[in-house]
Amino acid sequence: MIGVFDSGVGGLTVVRALEQLMPSLSLVYFGDVARTPYGSKSSETILRYSRQNTEFLLEQGAKLIIVGCNSAASVAGHLLQEEYNVPVLEVITPAVDLAVESSKTGRIGVIGTRATISSHIYDEKIHHRRSGCKVISEPCPLLVPLVEEGWMAKKETKTILKKYLHPIKMQSVDTLVLGCTHYPLLKPLIASRIGKGVRIIDSSIAVANVLAEYLAAHPDFAATLRPDGEKQYFVSDTTDAVQSVARDIFNRDIDFKLAKVTGA
Amino acid sequence: MIGVFDSGVGGLTVVRALEQLMPSLSLVYFGDVARTPYGSKSSETILRYSRQNTEFLLEQGAKLIIVGCNSAASVAGHLLQEEYNVPVLEVITPAVDLAVESSKTGRIGVIGTRATISSHIYDEKIHHRRSGCKVISEPCPLLVPLVEEGWMAKKETKTILKKYLHPIKMQSVDTLVLGCTHYPLLKPLIASRIGKGVRIIDSSIAVANVLAEYLAAHPDFAATLRPDGEKQYFVSDTTDAVQSVARDIFNRDIDFKLAKVTGA
Repeated sequence: MIGVFDSGVGGLTVVRALEQLMPSLSLVYFGDVARTPYGSKSSETILRYSRQNTEFLLEQGAKLIIVGCNSAASVAGHLLQEEYNVPVLEVITPAVDLAVESSKTGRIGVIGTRATISSHIYDEKIHHRRSGCKVISEPCPLLVPLVEEGWMAKKETKTILKKYLHPIKMQSVDTLVLGCTHYPLLKPLIASRIGKGVRIIDSSIAVANVLAEYLAAHPDFAATLRPDGEKQYFVSDTTDAVQSVARDIFNRDIDFKLAKVTGA
Repeated sequence: MIGVFDSGVGGLTVVRALEQLMPSLSLVYFGDVARTPYGSKSSETILRYSRQNTEFLLEQGAKLIIVGCNSAASVAGHLLQEEYNVPVLEVITPAVDLAVESSKTGRIGVIGTRATISSHIYDEKIHHRRSGCKVISEPCPLLVPLVEEGWMAKKETKTILKKYLHPIKMQSVDTLVLGCTHYPLLKPLIASRIGKGVRIIDSSIAVANVLAEYLAAHPDFAATLRPDGEKQYFVSDTTDAVQSVARDIFNRDIDFKLAKVTGA
């Protein structure tokens, strides 16, 4: 099976995208709700947590890891790939590839948490793929708490989003990367604020496509995955927000199991 | 020395209040920034973290613990008092006592995090102290992230605060308890929104007064505390927000040391 981890339950947007593309994929999810959010924490702390989460998923039998959290992917993605003996995918590279292919003008906006934006990973990866691109990135630290409160339709969320998107809009981007797995829940609002003609890149859909390509290219590996579509959901803490965010994503209740991960 | 812990750096408002009242008090502070915030987590998780934090402070030589976090005080305060062989003060009881003494009409408002408000500890303690009081409490989950972003003067903070305070204002309270150590940073804004004639109870000042009374009543214990005013500040993670919130509280930089607390 495939293992997906996130700092909380925002990474379930990745599971939703995987489920829509490959319904028979079996997977195990871990959401580190006891230590959420990661986006405001230091690189050292995020790396330590990411290793613990990866080890938990491997213990559950995961044969491939998806880092379903941009903050973790930005500081830990390549290190996890070096340190563990399984393929590691993450949500940033697929979104960057899609953004670079999609953009005509080379003017690309990126929004994410403080940790993701200050890591400059999107800038670096975009420039590496296509030099001469202009990347306008903006940290949006309040969006995760707003989504977790279910305030997707509230006026305050609209005005905060307007404030965050303003500097990006001023730079006439033609592509905007949602650099946080919570943000797909704000996609309609973001689309209406950023304006028509700007393509929005949803990293959860991008990584699902990359996994499908990977499995097609590695049929021997794909054959080792159980094709029974079983999904297991673990969290390091159970709170009201866990169920309500999950319901916002899947339109159904999810059966979460509590998992003790070292230190969580 | 005295030990103070909080889920993050909001508890520094307690240190500020202690410093203003008793400048020669020596103390050690621990802010669990690596796992902040507590207010959206479950009781079991908050209790586990609170025990680990208490043990860390005792290892540093603390002879009395102040739980400087309402979420931790609401679920763990009385248990820590039973489990550890030192006096444990917390921020809720002193604020309740002050609110009950202060209120003429018996109509008391309480604002706090989700964990604090759903624990109903303020309601219970207020009713225990004075039956017949009407308690109107409101969870304000977005205020901590707004304070940590330094958005104290932003229009969006004002409108969100207005929304949160509306149901309390409608109930004509004469006293409002700030049930979260971050909220003193919003005191001017809260005061202007809730209106004149409503007394605002700042739990950080209330607990400082209770400690001063305790030390006056226990001179032998007080004599065991070093009166050199030394303050040590530990955090489980260092981020930009740590220094900026500390600066908002003290108007100076604080020398934080990084501490590894089990699991943080």
